[in-house]
Amino acid sequence: MKLLVVSWGDFERWTEIKYCFGEEESVGPSTLPILQKVIKPDWTVILLSDTLGRDFSSLEALREDVRGRVMDFLDRIGAGREVDVIIVPGIGQFSHGTFRGNAMDAYHYLLHKLAEIIPPRGDLEVHFDSTHGLNYITLLAYRALEELLGIAAIVNEVKFTAYNSDPYVPKITHELTINVIEERKLTPSPLTEPLPEKSGEYLGNYSLPGREYGEVMKGLKRMENVRKSRGRLNAWISSVINGLPLVFASAFPEVDRLAGAIEELEAAYTEAIALSPGRVERRLSLGKGFGVLVKLHFQAKALETAGLPKDELSLEELLEVSERIFRGSVRASTKKELNKLSEALKFNSPSWIRLVELFEMAGKNPNRQVDDRNFLAHAGLEANLIELKREGELYVRYTREKVKYGGAMKEPWKVIENILSKTLGG
Amino acid sequence: MKLLVVSWGDFERWTEIKYCFGEEESVGPSTLPILQKVIKPDWTVILLSDTLGRDFSSLEALREDVRGRVMDFLDRIGAGREVDVIIVPGIGQFSHGTFRGNAMDAYHYLLHKLAEIIPPRGDLEVHFDSTHGLNYITLLAYRALEELLGIAAIVNEVKFTAYNSDPYVPKITHELTINVIEERKLTPSPLTEPLPEKSGEYLGNYSLPGREYGEVMKGLKRMENVRKSRGRLNAWISSVINGLPLVFASAFPEVDRLAGAIEELEAAYTEAIALSPGRVERRLSLGKGFGVLVKLHFQAKALETAGLPKDELSLEELLEVSERIFRGSVRASTKKELNKLSEALKFNSPSWIRLVELFEMAGKNPNRQVDDRNFLAHAGLEANLIELKREGELYVRYTREKVKYGGAMKEPWKVIENILSKTLGG
Repeated sequence: MKLLVVSWGDFERWTEIKYCFGEEESVGPSTLPILQKVIKPDWTVILLSDTLGRDFSSLEALREDVRGRVMDFLDRIGAGREVDVIIVPGIGQFSHGTFRGNAMDAYHYLLHKLAEIIPPRGDLEVHFDSTHGLNYITLLAYRALEELLGIAAIVNEVKFTAYNSDPYVPKITHELTINVIEERKLTPSPLTEPLPEKSGEYLGNYSLPGREYGEVMKGLKRMENVRKSRGRLNAWISSVINGLPLVFASAFPEVDRLAGAIEELEAAYTEAIALSPGRVERRLSLGKGFGVLVKLHFQAKALETAGLPKDELSLEELLEVSERIFRGSVRASTKKELNKLSEALKFNSPSWIRLVELFEMAGKNPNRQVDDRNFLAHAGLEANLIELKREGELYVRYTREKVKYGGAMKEPWKVIENILSKTLGG
Repeated sequence: MKLLVVSWGDFERWTEIKYCFGEEESVGPSTLPILQKVIKPDWTVILLSDTLGRDFSSLEALREDVRGRVMDFLDRIGAGREVDVIIVPGIGQFSHGTFRGNAMDAYHYLLHKLAEIIPPRGDLEVHFDSTHGLNYITLLAYRALEELLGIAAIVNEVKFTAYNSDPYVPKITHELTINVIEERKLTPSPLTEPLPEKSGEYLGNYSLPGREYGEVMKGLKRMENVRKSRGRLNAWISSVINGLPLVFASAFPEVDRLAGAIEELEAAYTEAIALSPGRVERRLSLGKGFGVLVKLHFQAKALETAGLPKDELSLEELLEVSERIFRGSVRASTKKELNKLSEALKFNSPSWIRLVELFEMAGKNPNRQVDDRNFLAHAGLEANLIELKREGELYVRYTREKVKYGGAMKEPWKVIENILSKTLGG
């Protein structure tokens, strides 16, 4: 799929000029027609600041005002109508009104809206034009795009090209060339940040009275639900980076639960935007945790596999997951570790046996305690933690029994989550 | 070290305004004094376009013109003089002159100059202000910074904060708040691109006659020298990503050779910039290969280790390299593979023995042919390729004998380079 993303400022003030792009030329106030003509995108996304809005009767009215004017403008310049318009929360004081809130809302909002538009599956060609954009919104859009496309690149081929025209100088400029300023194939960049601990990191307070903020936070049941299971979700995030196929399959996120939490947070954020004549105040702010949720949701959609989550898998299934998701030495080591399991249980055994017991039966003297490094060095297939059975095919799962860790008997998933929480930044 | 990087446009036209940042306020035409006051950077870098220059008598004169005016401006606004000014090759047509060249020169030039300023060793705190910058230079600077800091983060703690003030609206704005638009700790992001094959990808032709371009290219002895050894250098790039300690140590780049090639390319590029009254034309362009060289050089300086390159190392040394450079499951698997070598040769043996022979002596039946996946799955310590000796301590090296690969006997490093070339994007 071919996507064109353009970052725009105050489009009604642009001057007619001749644009040159490749072999084409076009005259008009915007680069859009010529970009669409040459690139032939399947879809176009226009990024605009809501500070262009002049109707303060409601948030919908404000956005509709901007959207309507963009649509009129598109008609005027003869641009295709296969577009989404993302109206980004901007800040500043203008002749028509004042817009207050956290400056990072723009990034989180862009991330969320772009994640809804960019298809997580299938090869992608993304073209980004920064010519007409506001500095900070363009920069934040670039970052959001780069992060989402790096995630999509785990399983898809993703190409990215950025453009910027020559600078426009009133009275001097007769024609402007649209230049390629970046062109590359994205390398896979899975999410590396964990879901944060504190609920305030998901939805921050900008200017609500403390008591009201407390009330809002108490109402966020779906976010709370996800936040409480962040140990498991962070283990999954780590499994993609560290090549842990059984953690990947067993802890695969429920996409709808993530979507529900994102929706809830967006609704609470939107609800708290106060409009009065000539003034918009975003009394809550979208936080880092919201951003991680959005990226996690996008990554889960990109890596979604029929039948997952699933906690008992055949060796074949685990090899398939590894082949699809992991790369380089991580993939090679993980597949080697999986294939070794086959050696450990050669006879049919319909009931689950702990790998550590198979080792003992074979006369080895395995460590009876789970060790962090060992867990990571064996693709998460640590002998105290996994169980095997064979019915022709070999099956693998994490044990449901407590295991020894740090000198005490602990729930297996508590142990896994504990080990993997140390592998993520934050 | 604390670094402040600011992207600037036409600074002589800025209006006096009140800036607010944290608890501080300051009145002036630029955000710089208040940023310096609050952040207290050890060093400041100002990014400017050379399109501001009005003296076309020579490239030096053009740059000196800009530099001199910036220095006067810094005096006027009372900013600290602990600054570097990077004068970026910009493009466009202005009332005072026309600047032509490849738009991506700005990125490659920024990357090169920032790599000279950012210390590759030691923890870093980088603050980036995009308030006053030109769109495309700011975007390209952001990308260059992000890439270099991701490399520095392999062995250092790196924090990045970006700022942008509220938008300035003539006659409306009384004061502007400087907003944090990004704040994060960088995750390690080693270089993933290989050095390209074609010499034209290091230094491209913008507008030189073909014959002249050919002459220039023929003169690039140091670049040619590096380009010819790109197989070994690309293997090293891969070793950092894939956790291959013996490749890392044996193929460690000669930093000075890389610096020499970069210098030579920059000189040829600069030499080909033609100035005439009111016109600058950059007849060559810095290419993708130049960018990879700069990042490779920066990465080698960041990961430099006393005594490397070295092709015979003790187990202890290889474990130390792995602990310092690799992370997560890659580190754990690599250290496990290294420790397994200790088991393979327990007795003292002053002469080198191929690991595959030790396996055969132990009654195993190893594959006598090198296999790509096996090489990667064992941290590059593949049994046909490595030799061990023990004099109390265990030592490891790659064999100098030919090995079987793809059905034929081949030089060992040809095999390693071949396997690893497939692990890099491009």
